[in-house]
Amino acid sequence: MLPEIDSYLSANAARFEDELCELLRIPSVSADSTRKGEVRRAAEWVAAQFRGLGLEVELCETAGHPIVFAEAKADPSKPTVLVYGHYDVQPPDPLDLWTTPPFEPTRRDGNIVARGATDDKGQMFTHVKSAEAWLKGTKGKLPVNLKFLIEGEEEVGSAHLDQFIEANKTKLKADVVVISDTSQFGPGRPAITYGLRGIAYYELKLQGPSRDLHSGTFGGGVMNPANALARVLATIIDERGRIQVPGFYDDVQPLTDLERQQFAALPFDEAQFMKAIGLTAVAGEEGFTTLERRWARPTFDINGLTSGYQGEGAKTVLPAKASAKFSFRLVPKQDPEKIRVALEAHLRRVLPSGVTMELTAFHGAPGVVVPLESPFVAAAVTAVESGFGRKPVFIREGGSIPVVSTFHELLGLDTLLLGWGLDDDNTHSPNEKFCLADFHRGIKASAYLWHEIGKKF
Amino acid sequence: MLPEIDSYLSANAARFEDELCELLRIPSVSADSTRKGEVRRAAEWVAAQFRGLGLEVELCETAGHPIVFAEAKADPSKPTVLVYGHYDVQPPDPLDLWTTPPFEPTRRDGNIVARGATDDKGQMFTHVKSAEAWLKGTKGKLPVNLKFLIEGEEEVGSAHLDQFIEANKTKLKADVVVISDTSQFGPGRPAITYGLRGIAYYELKLQGPSRDLHSGTFGGGVMNPANALARVLATIIDERGRIQVPGFYDDVQPLTDLERQQFAALPFDEAQFMKAIGLTAVAGEEGFTTLERRWARPTFDINGLTSGYQGEGAKTVLPAKASAKFSFRLVPKQDPEKIRVALEAHLRRVLPSGVTMELTAFHGAPGVVVPLESPFVAAAVTAVESGFGRKPVFIREGGSIPVVSTFHELLGLDTLLLGWGLDDDNTHSPNEKFCLADFHRGIKASAYLWHEIGKKF
Repeated sequence: MLPEIDSYLSANAARFEDELCELLRIPSVSADSTRKGEVRRAAEWVAAQFRGLGLEVELCETAGHPIVFAEAKADPSKPTVLVYGHYDVQPPDPLDLWTTPPFEPTRRDGNIVARGATDDKGQMFTHVKSAEAWLKGTKGKLPVNLKFLIEGEEEVGSAHLDQFIEANKTKLKADVVVISDTSQFGPGRPAITYGLRGIAYYELKLQGPSRDLHSGTFGGGVMNPANALARVLATIIDERGRIQVPGFYDDVQPLTDLERQQFAALPFDEAQFMKAIGLTAVAGEEGFTTLERRWARPTFDINGLTSGYQGEGAKTVLPAKASAKFSFRLVPKQDPEKIRVALEAHLRRVLPSGVTMELTAFHGAPGVVVPLESPFVAAAVTAVESGFGRKPVFIREGGSIPVVSTFHELLGLDTLLLGWGLDDDNTHSPNEKFCLADFHRGIKASAYLWHEIGKKF
Repeated sequence: MLPEIDSYLSANAARFEDELCELLRIPSVSADSTRKGEVRRAAEWVAAQFRGLGLEVELCETAGHPIVFAEAKADPSKPTVLVYGHYDVQPPDPLDLWTTPPFEPTRRDGNIVARGATDDKGQMFTHVKSAEAWLKGTKGKLPVNLKFLIEGEEEVGSAHLDQFIEANKTKLKADVVVISDTSQFGPGRPAITYGLRGIAYYELKLQGPSRDLHSGTFGGGVMNPANALARVLATIIDERGRIQVPGFYDDVQPLTDLERQQFAALPFDEAQFMKAIGLTAVAGEEGFTTLERRWARPTFDINGLTSGYQGEGAKTVLPAKASAKFSFRLVPKQDPEKIRVALEAHLRRVLPSGVTMELTAFHGAPGVVVPLESPFVAAAVTAVESGFGRKPVFIREGGSIPVVSTFHELLGLDTLLLGWGLDDDNTHSPNEKFCLADFHRGIKASAYLWHEIGKKF
């Protein structure tokens, strides 16, 4: 029990929400080059928060969007925790499916609804407010040294982050990383995520004729790049959900019996899962359960398709171009670069003659598994239980946080993935939300985490 | 030789071009419901032209865009020619590929460049001006009775035309139909088109989850409708260009040896064809030449693809929806309704579980072959030679003019397809054009056609 902390959090809960809304109002869409200024505004807002707490703050320029670095030095004998988060958000499209505008945060049914509410502004902010609770609510006694690394390019592949970490190894020296950018197992069922999938994201552009043609005059005599695209994409995965790119599964480690048993023991309600996202049937790789498919098996998903006429009515065009954005989710040991080489060779092999292809690789990151034996994990278990009133379960997560492997490779650090979100938070979708009760539980769990980590060393 | 006609055409050539530009400036895009008013404005402009010539004119309302009907009664003992054309145009997308704005007609390299220049405003207008030459240049002596049926829904499937023809059989009574909405065989090589392909156009919409999902959190456990779309579309046609919908070829008549010989004898330059549209290789159904594939074999072309994120950069979305517009070109004897039934059954059979489908059939029309023995064909041969200075060749055309089969079925009329366009006119593409010399040759050929038909009866 930390009564000073508890009472500070209660007394300031409403203000914390208002401050989060301020941040959510900034449309910091990193993928949209027309919003560069807004992205910077979000960085400055975050920096101002840290400055208000008396931290040393730097707005670090990159070739892309800036990185906010802040540091609170408590006691050199205490461990140092590096908190990572991101202030940028996904594009809000399709706009017409939002009930309220994406950048006008709205309280509804106990949630705050806005782009970035959970991914990651809301979750990231819990650690800022927990630091505040120690610094303002307890006469400045932070039980650990804290460093914050809050970037603005997570949603576009963190293009300049590795370079920044590489160049600032001393500044970023720490004992453990904490990230809140994942989900609980379910409402009121907090979780520590010990495994993440990696990602390899591509855009494939096919060009047929040099201009759009009349499909009557030319159809049948010219390879249609949209036909070719469908054919090529269909070769990547088969009816049983197995990816057909030669060599794709070479480095995939089979799930252990223990993991499969643990997954099976989790109270996962498949009917509820289907209902929540409007499915009449689950689907996926033959021989695996839904949790295994989502957490621990690689995938192929088309993320976008574009070709020809997409307006109202019919247009008899034989399009000159067709393109697809698609990505593989990777599991630990799969190497994104090796996948790219295998993919490109496969695509060139199956590409019909009469079209040319251009494959662009966007961000890639390997999957990671975090060791459960670390004392930081034990500290997190206690802290999360304090914040949420329930012991966390250990889960994996299908998404990718490439920085987790970067921290491991470049700084030798393990990462505590403490997710305060929920699977139905509509991350990357219209009507993204974050449960306000979880926002406050997250702040409390974070405040207790500094205490638990400080106690242990 | 018709000296009065010839000199009237020469004296008024510049004005004819200016008037065509007026019509081309009206963005009468029938597929775009926001341009309903502009479509009507084009109809009114055409009606005013006829009124100016002293014809009886009606602007006939339909449930869609209006039909312009005009009649010039010359002599009841003379044959009656029904001229069909359309004043609506294709959407101008993609706008960024136009060198000059699509609705600001521009003279360039001997062409007039604008949406609708050749399809069909420019070609249709030749018959208006040829009527004018007889009515104004020869003291009103039209050698035939003329009826004009100019519609505004050709580019969206002529939804209300059949109904209009059905309801106005007496009004439309004629001896032959004349349509200029096709192409010459090549520059300076006029042609009479005796065969047209039909069309069956569809939109397929697939729905997976009820909303867009994060491809990390959900990928692998949910059927992605864009993956499903690629797979389903890829089943429709195989690597050898053969359509795989069961029963699709049941009614396809094989090409006769004579036709294949005639096609092979035409001076078709495949290297030039490829160069003109930027191809490195032709493609299509195995066992057929490029002309056979384009004129006389059925096809499958995807006309549009839409799914997920299509903006700049990467978005890790598992889209809720994916859709395609696609069409088959049909050859004579294939029945669009039979094709629809076979297609829907095929799609339902190959559709993966976890997605639902909705198939919408847009316009459908069977292919047609026009008999070459008719005396009207002989008249057309002479008239085209007079206008173009060269005997026409007999060709087929890959496009569809559904109304040709409607005229045959409902009015018992054959159609003379006299195309003044060129294959590289960019119909349905950016930078649509019409050669101004061909515009004037077309007017002259049309004026001589009235004379030749009048002479024969």
